[in-house]
Amino acid sequence: MCEINEFPSVEKALLQLPTGDYDVVHGSLCGKQTCEIEVTEECKELAQKYNLELVTCGFKCREEQLRCPRVVRVGLFQHKLLPFPTTTPIQEIKYALFKFANKAIRIAGRGGVNIFCFAETWNMPHAFCTREKNPWCEFSENAQFGPTTKMLQELAKVHNMVIISPILERDEVMGDSIWNTAVVIDNLGNYIGKHRKNHISSAENSCESIYYSEGNTGHPVFETEFGKISICYGRHHPINWMMFGLNGADIVFNPSAAAGAESETLWHIEARNAAIANSYFTCALNRVGVEIFGNEYTSGDGKPPHKESNYFYGSSYVTAPNGTRSPGLSRTTNGLLIAEMDLNSNRQVRDEWGFLASQRLDMYKSLFAKAGSINYVPQIIRKMDKQK
Amino acid sequence: MCEINEFPSVEKALLQLPTGDYDVVHGSLCGKQTCEIEVTEECKELAQKYNLELVTCGFKCREEQLRCPRVVRVGLFQHKLLPFPTTTPIQEIKYALFKFANKAIRIAGRGGVNIFCFAETWNMPHAFCTREKNPWCEFSENAQFGPTTKMLQELAKVHNMVIISPILERDEVMGDSIWNTAVVIDNLGNYIGKHRKNHISSAENSCESIYYSEGNTGHPVFETEFGKISICYGRHHPINWMMFGLNGADIVFNPSAAAGAESETLWHIEARNAAIANSYFTCALNRVGVEIFGNEYTSGDGKPPHKESNYFYGSSYVTAPNGTRSPGLSRTTNGLLIAEMDLNSNRQVRDEWGFLASQRLDMYKSLFAKAGSINYVPQIIRKMDKQK
Repeated sequence: MCEINEFPSVEKALLQLPTGDYDVVHGSLCGKQTCEIEVTEECKELAQKYNLELVTCGFKCREEQLRCPRVVRVGLFQHKLLPFPTTTPIQEIKYALFKFANKAIRIAGRGGVNIFCFAETWNMPHAFCTREKNPWCEFSENAQFGPTTKMLQELAKVHNMVIISPILERDEVMGDSIWNTAVVIDNLGNYIGKHRKNHISSAENSCESIYYSEGNTGHPVFETEFGKISICYGRHHPINWMMFGLNGADIVFNPSAAAGAESETLWHIEARNAAIANSYFTCALNRVGVEIFGNEYTSGDGKPPHKESNYFYGSSYVTAPNGTRSPGLSRTTNGLLIAEMDLNSNRQVRDEWGFLASQRLDMYKSLFAKAGSINYVPQIIRKMDKQK
Repeated sequence: MCEINEFPSVEKALLQLPTGDYDVVHGSLCGKQTCEIEVTEECKELAQKYNLELVTCGFKCREEQLRCPRVVRVGLFQHKLLPFPTTTPIQEIKYALFKFANKAIRIAGRGGVNIFCFAETWNMPHAFCTREKNPWCEFSENAQFGPTTKMLQELAKVHNMVIISPILERDEVMGDSIWNTAVVIDNLGNYIGKHRKNHISSAENSCESIYYSEGNTGHPVFETEFGKISICYGRHHPINWMMFGLNGADIVFNPSAAAGAESETLWHIEARNAAIANSYFTCALNRVGVEIFGNEYTSGDGKPPHKESNYFYGSSYVTAPNGTRSPGLSRTTNGLLIAEMDLNSNRQVRDEWGFLASQRLDMYKSLFAKAGSINYVPQIIRKMDKQK
């Protein structure tokens, strides 16, 4: 039912342009050139062995006189649901995905990754479009003590890596409620906290609100050995991104499960705009492929029932605070993007452009207080002679 | 001193891609295909005669059962300072620009334009980079009664056109203060109000804050015969865009004077993101070319003094609420972009995607109130064992 477009990558297509044209088009669309970074041969070999597209890049940063560089490598892992039917028993799906994650984290470790992030609800089908509760709700786990967190705590310790694990959370204490939650594990293997998705999509075919509610964990910043990081699920909401910046985030990860041509138009815009507006790094992460469900379902779009999900278009990428973006991972295959950045970039861009200095928070705090009230009277100016 | 890149247009360069690739790249980067619209032969001939690039396009919209279409044409006029030295006497510069504006508005009239907009400080050199007060301050005019407004009121009446005129404003009543202000004239020739730029750039080479202060006119929406319109100068500030949306704007115009490669990276992102996040139309307008000043000045970038401004890269464009963007005007030449849109699109996208429904204003009104205070304690989560 869905249109599957197997086109591999926008950036690769642009390479077909004549050299002179390519440079300007690339500069205008993607910003400054990123640089190459070194990764071990073992990292490359393992990626090839496990059929994982490996993309690496570095963002340039000026040296400062008083601060040492704060160089960090992030690893963005995008993957398909493994080649199973979604009807495979839960334990089997999870076990196979655990094995795959293990490999990906090992490759990332060999690539010097300090912070590793999965896409949204990485350890299960993104099945909310079906509106069926069974068996999807059974995939949910306790954020702190569930098997996925336990498994990743071990890997985090072994590879000295912070891991962000976006899962479906079950809160047994709060009425067995379900949440769309990112778990953060530090590089010693400690569970340091979680963040619950703040904005629940009601876009076409996205039926998340019948499974879980809007997050109640605020806009936390997790202070790790490799910088202050946040997880922002609400890509469409600039004020959501902004609150993570106000709380001091250096890097904001945006784990997604984004599918379909309409959504893809927004994909290359939103996380980049957030990096620019807030002068921090953003990491946009998506899953790949089509998921085929056991039962037919309808999409509320007037079309006949079907079993296939929309097409998840991958294309994970990183943006620096000056708007420069990394090459993207493929639209169609499993991949790992390793990006190196110096967190000093953020303050350098803030000093250079001054967007944060000119943001007039004080004015907006009053304006928002008014605009959020049900008695709000919008500021509308009408033609004088119309009011006579 | 500045790097002048005479590359004409990103979209035109993309046309060199193989057809199949072009379609996906274009869809991914620009959204849905826009459609052609009809303009009179006279419009085309006049544009050719006056050497004005004419770009036209229409955004598609679904027909509704209960609302009639609300079809509007906007005209975005981007131009160089005419081929004068900037040292030409003020009256001569203004007179020549008035004549050119007259032609552009006539062409727009023949092209069925309902709302016409100029770029920022359109009737003078964008000379704030020089930091000289003389003669630039003398270009300022009273918003309601100055010669530019008077001239445009006549044209608005003749062509039945709303005109947005961004000028340097002189407020004789308030201590002869100067403001960066957009004047709005309705299609009967009435002055209906003004908006002063809210966020003053402190980016490299932009010395606006030594001429004028942050605007004190809020986020007004002007109700015209052709829809509710706003002017947003603060492209880098998502909350600025958002307030115009909360006040009910259908179309938000962003008159700019944006120059240089670093800025160009942001150009194709920010106004598009605003259209997406707020489900309204945005019109991003820029000037073109290099301006050469009489005296040398420095740019605070360690480079030697020079007389040339940075390169204003044109590329004006319109974005629909679903993220689809129009072709852009040239990076290098004078041009008029005529875009046709149905204002019903906004609510259709809001219904489809629900970004406004899920924005949680109530939560943010409290969060902003806190974050805007000097005693704000950011929400930071630290590793447990670190705190021991």
